Amino acid sequence: MPSLFHRLRVTSLGQPDRAFDLNVADEVPVRLIFNGIFSYGVMMMTPEDLEDFAVGYCLTEQIVGTSAQIRSVVVVETDDGLTVDVSIAGDALTSLIRRGPRTQTGHSSCGICGSDAVPSCDAIGVPVLGPGPVVSTEAVQLALNALGEWQTLNAATRMVHAAAWADRDGRILMIREDVGRHNALDKLIGARARGAEETGEGFCLLTSRYSFEMALKTLRSGIAIVVAVSAPTYRACRLAETMKQTLIAIARRDGQVLFCGGERLVQ
Amino acid sequence: MPSLFHRLRVTSLGQPDRAFDLNVADEVPVRLIFNGIFSYGVMMMTPEDLEDFAVGYCLTEQIVGTSAQIRSVVVVETDDGLTVDVSIAGDALTSLIRRGPRTQTGHSSCGICGSDAVPSCDAIGVPVLGPGPVVSTEAVQLALNALGEWQTLNAATRMVHAAAWADRDGRILMIREDVGRHNALDKLIGARARGAEETGEGFCLLTSRYSFEMALKTLRSGIAIVVAVSAPTYRACRLAETMKQTLIAIARRDGQVLFCGGERLVQ
Repeated sequence: MPSLFHRLRVTSLGQPDRAFDLNVADEVPVRLIFNGIFSYGVMMMTPEDLEDFAVGYCLTEQIVGTSAQIRSVVVVETDDGLTVDVSIAGDALTSLIRRGPRTQTGHSSCGICGSDAVPSCDAIGVPVLGPGPVVSTEAVQLALNALGEWQTLNAATRMVHAAAWADRDGRILMIREDVGRHNALDKLIGARARGAEETGEGFCLLTSRYSFEMALKTLRSGIAIVVAVSAPTYRACRLAETMKQTLIAIARRDGQVLFCGGERLVQ
Repeated sequence: MPSLFHRLRVTSLGQPDRAFDLNVADEVPVRLIFNGIFSYGVMMMTPEDLEDFAVGYCLTEQIVGTSAQIRSVVVVETDDGLTVDVSIAGDALTSLIRRGPRTQTGHSSCGICGSDAVPSCDAIGVPVLGPGPVVSTEAVQLALNALGEWQTLNAATRMVHAAAWADRDGRILMIREDVGRHNALDKLIGARARGAEETGEGFCLLTSRYSFEMALKTLRSGIAIVVAVSAPTYRACRLAETMKQTLIAIARRDGQVLFCGGERLVQ
C-alpha cells in the first residue's frame, strides 16, 4: 500500500532561512468499481481503511440500503493508484447502472454526487430522527479533550481530518482519518457498519466544518448527535434542525456552540 | 440573489449556557448549464461572483482553451437554487458533449472532475512554467499581513475561504471568497481572465490547503507563485516541483515554509 505521508526537505523563510524536514500527507487516486464491471469514479484520499470507506460511501450515497447488500470489498494496488472493487447485490447494481453512465471524479466523496438533481432537504431519503440518545455536556467535553491523542496520522502531519465515535460517557471508541473530511466520515460510518469494533449509542466527532453534504451523510446513517470542531454552514444547520439532529459545532476544548437539538443534552 | 450568510440564535455551552447571535455562511446549489442545453452538474457554493466562477471553472476544467471561447454567462435564480448558463463556442461545446453524458454533482469544483481517468501529472495539459516573476519574501509577508482586511465575508462569518491576487510588491489587488476553496480559486482565476480589474504579474494567495486539484487549477491558469496559508499535500508538492511552480505554504504572519521553486524568491 502507498505511504500515508512522506518526509520532505523544506525551507523556513526568515532571517536567515533554515532547512528542515517536514512530514506531508499524501493523497492517492482511488478508483471505485462495482462488481468488476461498473467504473464509478475516482476520488483522492488517504490510502488506509479503504474497505471501511467503500462500505460507508455505499451507505451514505444510498448505493445500497444496508451493508448486507455488500458482498465483498477488494482493494488492489495499480500502477497509478488504488482500485476498490465492491461487489454489491444484483438489484443494487441494477439500480446503480440505471442511474446512468456517471463517472464522477472528485477530490472527496460528497453526499450529492450521483444525482443531477439540485439537492434539497427532501432528497435525503431517510425519516426524521427519533428521540435519544441523551449525553451530558461533560461527556462532549471529555471526548473533545481526548480527540487529539486519537489522531495518529494527524500527529505526524498536522494536516488531516478525523471522524470519531464516542460513547455516551464521552469515551472515544473509534477514529478514522483522511485528507478529506467527507472521506474520514465515510470511513467511520463504514467501520461502524462493518462492526469491526463495538460502538453502540453515542455521538460523532468531526474535526472539520459541517456542510450540507456532511449533514446528509450523518443523517443517512442515523447519527443523532454531531460535534464538529469547525463551523457549520447555514444549510447544514437548517437540515439538522429539520431532521431533529443535535448539532454542536465550533467545538473547542474551551467552549462549544449548540446550534439545534438541545433536548439530547444534559448538564 | 440569496443571502451570503444568515444570523442564527445559538447557545454557548458552559456554566451557565448563554444564548447569542452568530452569522453563519450559506451554501447554495448552483447548476451549471452550457448553451442552454447541456446540464453539467450542481455545485454547492457561496452565491456571489458566479460569472467569475463560471469563467474560471471553464478554464481550469479545460472546457474552453481561452476565455475568448466563452460568449456569455447568465445567472438565473430558481426556486431551488441558482442556474448559471454559460454559452461557449460551438467546437468547445462539441468537445464537452463528446466527453459523455456526465452530470457531476459535487460540493465544490475539483480539478479532476470531468474525467474518469486516474489523474496523473501528465493529465494537466499545460507546459512546464517558464522563469519569472521574482518576488521578495518581504512582499509575501506584506500580502499575508493585509489578507485578513480583504476578507469581507470571512470577517462577518469566520468560516469562508479566499483566493487573492497580489502584485510583485505584495499589494493585494483582488480577492474572491467562497465556502469552498476550489470555488474561491476558480472565482479568482475567472475574475483575472475577465479583466475586470488590472492584475498583471504577481502571486496567488490561498487561505486554504494546497491539494493536487488546487495545484492543477493554478497550473492550468499559468500561476507561477502560490502562497497557501495551510499545508500542501505531498502530491501537490510533487506536481508543483515537476511544473517548476514556486510553492510557499503553512504561510502565516509569523513564518512561512518554502516547498519548491525558491529561484523566484529574493530576500
